[in-house]
Amino acid sequence: MTYCCGILVDEGLVMLADTRTNAGVDNISVFRKLHVFEAPGAHAILVATAGNLSVTQSALSLLQTGVRDPETGGMETLAGCLTMFRAAQLCGIALRTVTGSMKPGLEEAGVAYGASLLLGGQIGGGPPTLYQIYGAGNFIECGPDAPFLQIGEPKYGKPILDRFIRWDMRLDEALKIGLLSYDPTIRSNVAVGMPIDLAVLKRDALKLELNHRVEPGDAYFEEMSNRWADALQEAADRIPPPPYGDEGRES
Amino acid sequence: MTYCCGILVDEGLVMLADTRTNAGVDNISVFRKLHVFEAPGAHAILVATAGNLSVTQSALSLLQTGVRDPETGGMETLAGCLTMFRAAQLCGIALRTVTGSMKPGLEEAGVAYGASLLLGGQIGGGPPTLYQIYGAGNFIECGPDAPFLQIGEPKYGKPILDRFIRWDMRLDEALKIGLLSYDPTIRSNVAVGMPIDLAVLKRDALKLELNHRVEPGDAYFEEMSNRWADALQEAADRIPPPPYGDEGRES
Repeated sequence: MTYCCGILVDEGLVMLADTRTNAGVDNISVFRKLHVFEAPGAHAILVATAGNLSVTQSALSLLQTGVRDPETGGMETLAGCLTMFRAAQLCGIALRTVTGSMKPGLEEAGVAYGASLLLGGQIGGGPPTLYQIYGAGNFIECGPDAPFLQIGEPKYGKPILDRFIRWDMRLDEALKIGLLSYDPTIRSNVAVGMPIDLAVLKRDALKLELNHRVEPGDAYFEEMSNRWADALQEAADRIPPPPYGDEGRES
Repeated sequence: MTYCCGILVDEGLVMLADTRTNAGVDNISVFRKLHVFEAPGAHAILVATAGNLSVTQSALSLLQTGVRDPETGGMETLAGCLTMFRAAQLCGIALRTVTGSMKPGLEEAGVAYGASLLLGGQIGGGPPTLYQIYGAGNFIECGPDAPFLQIGEPKYGKPILDRFIRWDMRLDEALKIGLLSYDPTIRSNVAVGMPIDLAVLKRDALKLELNHRVEPGDAYFEEMSNRWADALQEAADRIPPPPYGDEGRES
């Protein structure tokens, strides 16, 4: 499992990914799942990966070295894409190409081959954009109505993102809420774990503002978790008990 | 989908179940999924159901009218069980009997036949007990270390239960936290919805203290949701933004 999250607000883009991979609960490792393709002034592209690690690593290698477009026969790299839409298409082709070639062997071995990507970034004069790429090669684009996308284990963190992420919020607030969504996810799913990689891209900067790894025991993350836990406990304590059917209950 | 939750604390048992069923998103109905088997002074047994509705309804009918034990050949009803352990075994047999007979037809039709139950209650001089019964007929018993069980859509509500449910908490507080876990679940999963049925059984009462339906627009539930939303917003606002890599950021 994995938890990756991309947040696209008016001010720019935040992407986060944990680093835990597991082949069974008895084989847990740390692998980077947030990948940067940056040429300052020209483009800043981020890819986060979830699913079968051999599939996503091979797809990333193709995106770096060249993906053959089955329609045109031409070879293209992610860094050579002129628009984020083309970059999303290329990610889709890469994922489908790798999945197609690995599926028979993985199916035979009874290994899950599903994989998906988040692609975010900005190229030249185009707008900052965020896509979710499915294993079948299709993709959806993030919009202002629900300005975030998640892959891997989305459910534990989604209520926090749903509550707080708004298109017009500040970028550092978006990063804070994104990080906060890792707190319940890490608590509830042992297949999601520290360190957390994160990247922040300001609109039109064409260069990452932040490319950081949050290590286990990070002072800010621990303080955030503790403050959140205390505030929730206080809030729960202040809600009165349900008034239903008082007649039958002791006072 | 469905969300049912059982909480077993020292003081007794709380069970909650939503009432939404769906056969596709274009066919949504209200069905009771929390069922009461009560003989005051003798036993109080609660069954909550998730999964294929035809399977769980048939299993409940068998539990009322008689399940044939494949080992002894004898017929037994849930109300006739002398211990909660036997009641759990009988629920498992009923679920497996129905699943076994319906599986070929449902598989042919491409319909999911999975189903599971929560069984909670107290019989005679035995202790209050809570079980989760799987479709295969096996079951697990809830214990003081993690004194709750969930079926259906567990993930949105689990962080709240993990945070607050404790074996030594008051029964009305357990009911409050159980209800609170429906707030993010209903927000995030349209296949879980009001009304919510709930029941409270005090240890050794052998009679329900509360058997209540929380209707849409319920004043207490709405106030609880609003207070919770306000407190979370305030808590998130009070957490400072992340301090990472300040050098590259505007002040």
